[in-house]
Amino acid sequence: MPVGTQATVKGITPDQLAAFGSRIILGNTYHLTLRPGDALIAELGGLHRFMSWNGPILTDSGGYQVFSLADVRKITDAGATFKSHIDGKILDLTPERAVEIQQNLGSDIAMVLDECPPAKAPDAVMQAAVDRSIRWAERCKAAHTRKDQAQFAIIQGGLDIKLRQRCAEALVAMDFPGYAQGGFSVGESPEEMAAALPECVDVMPTHKPRYLMGVGRPQDLLAGVASGIDMFDCVMPTRNGRNAMAFTNSGPVRLRNAQHRRDPAPLASDCACYTCQHFSRAYLHHLFHVEEMLGPTLVSLHNLAFYLDLMARTRSAIAAGRFAEFHADCLARWSGNA
Amino acid sequence: MPVGTQATVKGITPDQLAAFGSRIILGNTYHLTLRPGDALIAELGGLHRFMSWNGPILTDSGGYQVFSLADVRKITDAGATFKSHIDGKILDLTPERAVEIQQNLGSDIAMVLDECPPAKAPDAVMQAAVDRSIRWAERCKAAHTRKDQAQFAIIQGGLDIKLRQRCAEALVAMDFPGYAQGGFSVGESPEEMAAALPECVDVMPTHKPRYLMGVGRPQDLLAGVASGIDMFDCVMPTRNGRNAMAFTNSGPVRLRNAQHRRDPAPLASDCACYTCQHFSRAYLHHLFHVEEMLGPTLVSLHNLAFYLDLMARTRSAIAAGRFAEFHADCLARWSGNA
Repeated sequence: MPVGTQATVKGITPDQLAAFGSRIILGNTYHLTLRPGDALIAELGGLHRFMSWNGPILTDSGGYQVFSLADVRKITDAGATFKSHIDGKILDLTPERAVEIQQNLGSDIAMVLDECPPAKAPDAVMQAAVDRSIRWAERCKAAHTRKDQAQFAIIQGGLDIKLRQRCAEALVAMDFPGYAQGGFSVGESPEEMAAALPECVDVMPTHKPRYLMGVGRPQDLLAGVASGIDMFDCVMPTRNGRNAMAFTNSGPVRLRNAQHRRDPAPLASDCACYTCQHFSRAYLHHLFHVEEMLGPTLVSLHNLAFYLDLMARTRSAIAAGRFAEFHADCLARWSGNA
Repeated sequence: MPVGTQATVKGITPDQLAAFGSRIILGNTYHLTLRPGDALIAELGGLHRFMSWNGPILTDSGGYQVFSLADVRKITDAGATFKSHIDGKILDLTPERAVEIQQNLGSDIAMVLDECPPAKAPDAVMQAAVDRSIRWAERCKAAHTRKDQAQFAIIQGGLDIKLRQRCAEALVAMDFPGYAQGGFSVGESPEEMAAALPECVDVMPTHKPRYLMGVGRPQDLLAGVASGIDMFDCVMPTRNGRNAMAFTNSGPVRLRNAQHRRDPAPLASDCACYTCQHFSRAYLHHLFHVEEMLGPTLVSLHNLAFYLDLMARTRSAIAAGRFAEFHADCLARWSGNA
């Protein structure tokens, strides 16, 4: 899922998003409730109409952003009290409010509110967060009334596999239509995540969507798929694109580097995206060098197309029964060993 | 002509440009020779291929930018010596070099190098600039060798109509394929320009394109057309678009204003552009409020579509013999008196 934090995938129009095959995008509850406000979006017909996106939208619950962006003042079973990172205003986010916001936004998939501690929080903190996340999931389920919106639960527990399994069991017993692994990519190494994932995913129902939140690099997505994950979201294609870093099947390309100054070749010769079909590395280098807006747009567009194409090829490889081979081949190519 | 100063119309892809009917765009000799350099663009196949624009391109000669952006150190008959506004490097721009740069860029229409004093420069300065611009035009013509590129001359003379007429006569005698009025929109009031234009345009050959450089607001374009002008370029649609100011047939709309916060209406209900067909004023207000790149892109796109549509409607009105009525109607609408 391309990430559209503030009701826009940064620098990309909905038409462009659709053109390279985006089917579902993500919106951020935390940001949207601060600006322009979920009540206003509801008044204007919901998030789809507001941002003119006709496909499905998943919204997170705001939990992760409250813990990562805002200054959390108090956290109790009632909910989290935090200071807005925009204007310092003190706000509350309760499980019921997280459900209400997402119902106002009218997303197709909503997430329950969870407590998301740093990856290496002490055991007691992690256990308390898991217990609280389970209680909050129950309250979110009870508060949820929109029949046209699916509500997914979020499994926490850091790198403690037993704890994640306990959390998953409790949530699975509540019978949500989909499950996510939260609290990865929050401080642990990619290797630690990849090592923990298989056993964590094993306890997620296979007949329901399995979603790994906020992950990640192309190799992290394939590690997730290898463990059984079906869905991902990550800001990396757009954030790196804005910073002139492009993903290709030959590994990352840093377009600000002087080596691209006179290079007439496209970013990736095997890529069918608008950027690669129309522009040279020399042109993209120029755009970043002179700080033109079109540079971030064109490289974000390529990166999103690269990620979506990677997932399309992954689905084909799975369908053809050759995912392991495809996975190994990708890793070899990206590290320059193909 | 939408302005693509640094080999990109700011924030707009060539596909988007073509979609709302752009046929010819402008590139800036001064900026492109500084970065990435005209020799590099030539090596990469010329400006069209570099920026992936398949339609015609007009390039200015760099004269105006040298006098407005750079710190001019010395100006003699040989040419101008100036300090780059990017890195302070001392550079020369001679008539022959201005021709060479534009031949390297490979634009379809190139402009001669001219000296462009402020609108209210003393008579003696203005007369000397006109004399020099005439001599430089002659040298540009002699230096010009590309058969696939038309070279247009530039008439100077400030608000002194006799001087402009003398300049035009000298240039017309050299038989250029097109003529421009330069040195408007450089300090005089729009009323002073509109008053001077008819007599200035009268001495331009009617069977060749007549171009008013760097102008302007919608009402200034119509004043130009009323005087016989055929071509315009201006940064206003994109510059104002980036600053949340939109042109509409009901007058300008400032999207940052709080009155648009909950407005579900499009920017202009009579506009067929992508922005107006997909987004509300409330959404555009939100994008600027949260500083999202898509705001400048969507409003620039609307403004360019507005300008191009205005010129299309102008052509229809002329063809139907009702331009005067159309002109009066537009002015009344834009001032809220329709």
